Amino acid sequence: MSEQLIRTTEVASHVGERVTLRGWVHTVRRLGGVIFLVLRDGWGTVQAVSENEDDLVVLLSGEAGAESVVELTGMVTAMPQAPSGVEIHAPQVQVITPVTETPPVVINKREIKAGLAAQLDHAVVVNRHPARRAVFRLAAAAMRSFRETLNGRGFTEIQSPKIVASATESGANVFKINYFDQVAYLAQSPQFYKQIMVGVFERVYEVGPVFRAEPHDTVRHVNEYVSMDVEFGFIENHFTVMAMLREVMSGIMDGLQGYCPAELALLEAAMPAVPPTIPHIHFHEAQELIFQKHGVDVRGEPDLSPQDERWLGVWAKEEFNSDFLFVVGYPMGKRPFYTHPNPANPAYSNSFDLLFRGTELVTGGQRLHRYEDYLSALARAGHPTEPFATYMEAFRYGMPPHGGFAIGLERLLMQLLGLQNLRLATLFPRDLTRLTP
Amino acid sequence: MSEQLIRTTEVASHVGERVTLRGWVHTVRRLGGVIFLVLRDGWGTVQAVSENEDDLVVLLSGEAGAESVVELTGMVTAMPQAPSGVEIHAPQVQVITPVTETPPVVINKREIKAGLAAQLDHAVVVNRHPARRAVFRLAAAAMRSFRETLNGRGFTEIQSPKIVASATESGANVFKINYFDQVAYLAQSPQFYKQIMVGVFERVYEVGPVFRAEPHDTVRHVNEYVSMDVEFGFIENHFTVMAMLREVMSGIMDGLQGYCPAELALLEAAMPAVPPTIPHIHFHEAQELIFQKHGVDVRGEPDLSPQDERWLGVWAKEEFNSDFLFVVGYPMGKRPFYTHPNPANPAYSNSFDLLFRGTELVTGGQRLHRYEDYLSALARAGHPTEPFATYMEAFRYGMPPHGGFAIGLERLLMQLLGLQNLRLATLFPRDLTRLTP
Repeated sequence: MSEQLIRTTEVASHVGERVTLRGWVHTVRRLGGVIFLVLRDGWGTVQAVSENEDDLVVLLSGEAGAESVVELTGMVTAMPQAPSGVEIHAPQVQVITPVTETPPVVINKREIKAGLAAQLDHAVVVNRHPARRAVFRLAAAAMRSFRETLNGRGFTEIQSPKIVASATESGANVFKINYFDQVAYLAQSPQFYKQIMVGVFERVYEVGPVFRAEPHDTVRHVNEYVSMDVEFGFIENHFTVMAMLREVMSGIMDGLQGYCPAELALLEAAMPAVPPTIPHIHFHEAQELIFQKHGVDVRGEPDLSPQDERWLGVWAKEEFNSDFLFVVGYPMGKRPFYTHPNPANPAYSNSFDLLFRGTELVTGGQRLHRYEDYLSALARAGHPTEPFATYMEAFRYGMPPHGGFAIGLERLLMQLLGLQNLRLATLFPRDLTRLTP
Repeated sequence: MSEQLIRTTEVASHVGERVTLRGWVHTVRRLGGVIFLVLRDGWGTVQAVSENEDDLVVLLSGEAGAESVVELTGMVTAMPQAPSGVEIHAPQVQVITPVTETPPVVINKREIKAGLAAQLDHAVVVNRHPARRAVFRLAAAAMRSFRETLNGRGFTEIQSPKIVASATESGANVFKINYFDQVAYLAQSPQFYKQIMVGVFERVYEVGPVFRAEPHDTVRHVNEYVSMDVEFGFIENHFTVMAMLREVMSGIMDGLQGYCPAELALLEAAMPAVPPTIPHIHFHEAQELIFQKHGVDVRGEPDLSPQDERWLGVWAKEEFNSDFLFVVGYPMGKRPFYTHPNPANPAYSNSFDLLFRGTELVTGGQRLHRYEDYLSALARAGHPTEPFATYMEAFRYGMPPHGGFAIGLERLLMQLLGLQNLRLATLFPRDLTRLTP
């Protein structure tokens, strides 16, 4: 009789075979003389059933409780009424690492009952919960399909420095570092570097940490997150960038469904369809629409409020049956200095936000590409040119029209999965007060 | 006649067609009434040839010099004596972004003549040089094939926090951050997090920046680099880890050859064969061998010197015809506190270095996995347990035997390509004094 080492996700294809699995004791229950053991490995769970207490006495005695690491050998048996259609019968268990203490948060029930603070304090253990780790498996799948979509379109991955000599876009909201005898900062975004690299590779992307010292204590902010950045050259205008973003969103959604069907099912994720063309509305028209439909006069405001975005999300769903909506043409005043204006109406920008179910998910646009335009823009913004000297070299020596966007990985997951707090989409979040685990 | 927008790397398959390309003016030369224009786009270069000065007058007059961004249309013609076997004839050029200033470093000759400092100061432009950017295209391919190798073996990608509450392994050599009203640090490695995540996913990897405040001014040190980290559970000992590292090295080398044949050819890279089993030697035997072969008594030294490693590299080549050699069993005293000792001889560790052509390229090993062992190890190392409290939770609640390794991306490229300075394998290096570009 063969005895193979397999994963929990492979059990169903080994019915009638004797197999060995390794993992963690997720739960052990005794029900009328029958013992049910759920084993969790790195990929899923499987139930083992024994009618012989002696075989599993070590797990029942408290010698090796929940979260003990074990090796289990038994017979795979088809069992239509079992959660996954199969069970392991007559399991023999060997303890590899016994655990005798009860975990600080209960992680072997369907739902985690602990409050947010306790969950975050004990994320080291709580992230083992099947529903929690499903979020992070989806994070991995999102990064993977983001990269695959772009690799297939001639993009090259870069890794730009995170320690920088000056703040990227604004002097505020940046973390200071003691860098030998100099002061340095943590990069707020790879913006300047991805633009510079358009001059090298034409099409680049980066997946990496960004750092924001914003002192916000909200459910939608953390101070370190993962940004999926894209930048590419030879665009017509921001609509070229929006078309690429549509491809990327579509690639990510397909990737999640392809790589993580079990995780999406477990989390009961409502997957959106990405329309062949995502509808768009001009900033101006959006404000007019809100006034007409809701009687609230936001015309003349320099930006959209969260309520405005929610209204627009509802409208996009009603009007186009789309979970996605582009808002284009934000006023220049609210956009960073490198933003390209609309040539026909320079008070408005060739930029966009992508709303997903009524909340901003992605920001992007066309950037300035002429050296002279940067000189004027920096002067207009009241920035000295010196801290931008090396950035400016890219434009001084030839840059094509270009643009890009940045997707916040955690925000994407939060909105897709309907999580109540961005921290629950972050492996080990950093906020105003939290630096551990 | 069709007129298609293509890349330089696609020209050869469009002989006899009229095509359009976009990119940068790499060089323009006049040779006996014939004008040779080399166009560089994000992927390669192509030569266009014109016998009509009037067509290219804008490029010849200085109105649009080297690095100008242009669109070029012409007829693809087979030309066996041309560098790539094809040329563009009768090119028409439209200038998109003119450049009139001469770049600060000459980047359109086969070799860059400027000194290292000038090259690094002007990396924004110098990274456009075909030989420079080939290095970074290889970096992207190395990351890609690293991930693909591991994705195919059940690994999950993680992104661990880079802002941490305490130094990972040693209090020295860590950058301090002003984190609101707390002091925090930049992560020296994802070591603790990748171990913690073995408790969640069993097999994890990360590609991300690490930060070392070592005040070293050498050709082999920078203060921020890209680490490709692996960690996985249910190992037998460090030999299981070494076998996985062999798979990864083999996957990377195959990936470089598959994705970047042109870049490897341009850089004249001598690609190593990764043997089916990489030979290994015990630290102890290595010192004995050096004494026997070279008469230098390094026996009793706690570590190998660079000279020792070079001698061992020569020996591995002579003895096994291998560019790779594992040295195993380093003394515990020189390894971090979480290192697993050799059960048979606890003064030596279940750890290894991978030497590549006589230089250390990768470090790894088996880690402690029992909670009690961590308590003892921290006490022995004189560390207080409090800063390690959340890390220790992973071990308190069940961890399997596990291990892993970290590959420095830039060091891999430096050694593979025979670069004289690690900075030349780094997109925008950070060192003791350099924070820009």
